[in-house]
Amino acid sequence: MQESQTTMEMTLHPIGYVRSPYKKRGDGPRQGRQSDKTSEIVVDPRYRDGLFRLEMDKRLVVLAWFDRSDRTFLRVTPPGTTVEHGIFATRSPDRPNPIGLTVVDLIGIKDGVLEVRGLDSLDGTPIIDIKPYIPEFDSPPPAE
Amino acid sequence: MQESQTTMEMTLHPIGYVRSPYKKRGDGPRQGRQSDKTSEIVVDPRYRDGLFRLEMDKRLVVLAWFDRSDRTFLRVTPPGTTVEHGIFATRSPDRPNPIGLTVVDLIGIKDGVLEVRGLDSLDGTPIIDIKPYIPEFDSPPPAE
Repeated sequence: MQESQTTMEMTLHPIGYVRSPYKKRGDGPRQGRQSDKTSEIVVDPRYRDGLFRLEMDKRLVVLAWFDRSDRTFLRVTPPGTTVEHGIFATRSPDRPNPIGLTVVDLIGIKDGVLEVRGLDSLDGTPIIDIKPYIPEFDSPPPAE
Repeated sequence: MQESQTTMEMTLHPIGYVRSPYKKRGDGPRQGRQSDKTSEIVVDPRYRDGLFRLEMDKRLVVLAWFDRSDRTFLRVTPPGTTVEHGIFATRSPDRPNPIGLTVVDLIGIKDGVLEVRGLDSLDGTPIIDIKPYIPEFDSPPPAE
């Protein structure tokens, strides 16, 4: 791997940000699926053309950048447990690349703003990707 | 959003890379779940402590950086269709932030190398995150 070259190019561009009732860590549920509250994803005008036909999808995968995370942790004791885990064995927002993955329900899209249910991101969190949720790939049957 | 500040900090660090039988675009299946071939994720020694207890998980979510993608596309016509879609309504690797999301089965871990089934990434692809797959969050029941 040509690390110096790869690292140089691995810079994310926010495609939008979250408008949420959750203002700071501790406000939100542990995972967005545990709440019925709705949030908005405000997509930057430069990227709105990428939303074409997205309204056909009812369920999305949203990737967010946890901009208030500590990237130095390699182990953590998850909430509700007393056992230390490596960071990659948890869904902690404190991780080397603090990318949050949430499956959300799409309620509607208007003027580049998505209304979604199930997003646990804090208000102002940068959004880095939106994908259609495809059950065949994203919730495959258990291996035999 | 304080965009200049946020952008400055949104740099990814590869935590490892893929060893795969797929050497170039076109070699792999459209999605890794369509093949039984195994791949390896070689985790960088600096991040191996983050794998502690990961062997308890049989299914993982892997985030990869598609380093051979074109980040300028906002619309594409997905394979097998004749209809143009916005990039966020597709799983194309050519997207503003070319992050691939794949659900894989963990076969084993040895000396910081994960053997997995279902990964569609090309040989040498940087890996940026590994998370446990949690059905409650990642394959929620359909909204009513």
